[in-house]
Amino acid sequence: MVARNDDDEPTLTVIGHVESPLADPKLAPKQGSEGSPEAWLVFLPFFRDALRDLEEGDDVIVLTWLDRADRSALRVHPRDDLSRPPVGVFRTRSADRPNPIGLHRVRILSIDGLRFRVRDLEAVDGTPIIDVKPVIAGARDS
Amino acid sequence: MVARNDDDEPTLTVIGHVESPLADPKLAPKQGSEGSPEAWLVFLPFFRDALRDLEEGDDVIVLTWLDRADRSALRVHPRDDLSRPPVGVFRTRSADRPNPIGLHRVRILSIDGLRFRVRDLEAVDGTPIIDVKPVIAGARDS
Repeated sequence: MVARNDDDEPTLTVIGHVESPLADPKLAPKQGSEGSPEAWLVFLPFFRDALRDLEEGDDVIVLTWLDRADRSALRVHPRDDLSRPPVGVFRTRSADRPNPIGLHRVRILSIDGLRFRVRDLEAVDGTPIIDVKPVIAGARDS
Repeated sequence: MVARNDDDEPTLTVIGHVESPLADPKLAPKQGSEGSPEAWLVFLPFFRDALRDLEEGDDVIVLTWLDRADRSALRVHPRDDLSRPPVGVFRTRSADRPNPIGLHRVRILSIDGLRFRVRDLEAVDGTPIIDVKPVIAGARDS
């Protein structure tokens, strides 16, 4: 099962985008809890049915595609600190990695149709959204 | 920023595959903590440097591509229970969703080169792996 071929490479479907006052990835917090402003998740109309039953006050995990990342990076300096030795990217939360998928736990503050206002999202303006999952009480991945 | 076009659809790079005694998605646990057997993460040699510094005993979040999922699903019955009304897929952890990305928090039990033995992985044999991230103490998404 470890052979590699082009048929194996899946294509993502963008389901929406982030609207945020954060514009520069270099200035954005490394984690959402490190001082992120409120932001909007703006979904495409095609996915309206998939958003049903999400409610204000829910905590969700938003998956984004960090489209400004360096996908060729295999090792990075932790937190961009050049004084620290480089480590394997899978040992870090760096955006620079083969598949730059961001995981963001956010709270839904309000819902206006396809626009969801959230807090604690450190993704920059225009970042594509690829998934939303509920936080499961007791689940070990949330 | 909500226009949709083909240039916008990112392509994933498969970094490895799951080897597991679980073969049938219908019989696999819904969550890793619900009785998953031990399994292997088998990475492609190209990504060896990216795996450096991961160690036995580490808890990591593995992202997989659930390639047997139904990507057209926008609403599903929770936990495949037809007696429960369908809800939006983004309100569920169903594998059936536009981008069937699995999130799995697992513990690394042992490392043998490119093969990582883990526990609590509910993905079935052959599932593509797309990312590994460390669990960050205090981070709200892990």
